[in-house]
Amino acid sequence: MTLQEFYEAYIDCLNRQDWDELGRYVAEDVKHNGRPIRLSGYRLMLIKDFEDIPDLYFVIDRLACDPPLIAARLMFDCSPKGDFLGLPINGRRISFAENVFYEVTGDRIVDVFSAIDKAAIENQIA
Amino acid sequence: MTLQEFYEAYIDCLNRQDWDELGRYVAEDVKHNGRPIRLSGYRLMLIKDFEDIPDLYFVIDRLACDPPLIAARLMFDCSPKGDFLGLPINGRRISFAENVFYEVTGDRIVDVFSAIDKAAIENQIA
Repeated sequence: MTLQEFYEAYIDCLNRQDWDELGRYVAEDVKHNGRPIRLSGYRLMLIKDFEDIPDLYFVIDRLACDPPLIAARLMFDCSPKGDFLGLPINGRRISFAENVFYEVTGDRIVDVFSAIDKAAIENQIA
Repeated sequence: MTLQEFYEAYIDCLNRQDWDELGRYVAEDVKHNGRPIRLSGYRLMLIKDFEDIPDLYFVIDRLACDPPLIAARLMFDCSPKGDFLGLPINGRRISFAENVFYEVTGDRIVDVFSAIDKAAIENQIA
């Protein structure tokens, strides 16, 4: 399995909300933006994302694989129920990008470095 | 020259503020986050960044090269003079990441997709 196939399978797992399978892709001691949240915390973060954004769906716009790194530009077109990143969205439809790096060791994601284009969301609700 | 060497030379050009040399790395018809700003607009954007942030310095934290894409996680540790991304920084020192994708065609950057981790800055000034 190439790094690209691995990543596409991971994103498919998220979109199916198949939390029992998440550990196939994410290491037990995963870190997210420097915080050691572990697999259990990573799963809870994703479950809360889908609660807050019922129509959440991950689309890979760009993908750069350079072992052990994966870099993805993810595009979202969705309707957060209430606040999102501290912004009052309240069910409005917004589009935004997340540029995210993953470090993969031993066939699992061990480190995630994410940046969401919040300024683009602010422009849409201004 | 590898894509990594090309990118390191581009970042060095920015840090030297060598605007006469920018066209060696950036195409005349470059786009930034979907906007066709051209090389002249790209140069003006960077000159304004250095005016607003006198101690601006680009550090490559992570780099994934997968032709024709470059993905970089850039780290900044700097002191914007006034507002930055709409936040009142007023000379305080902040640290933040920019995750950015570049598409390279014909030895020049033709497309840039940037996302700055604004939430991290908000946490620092809260």
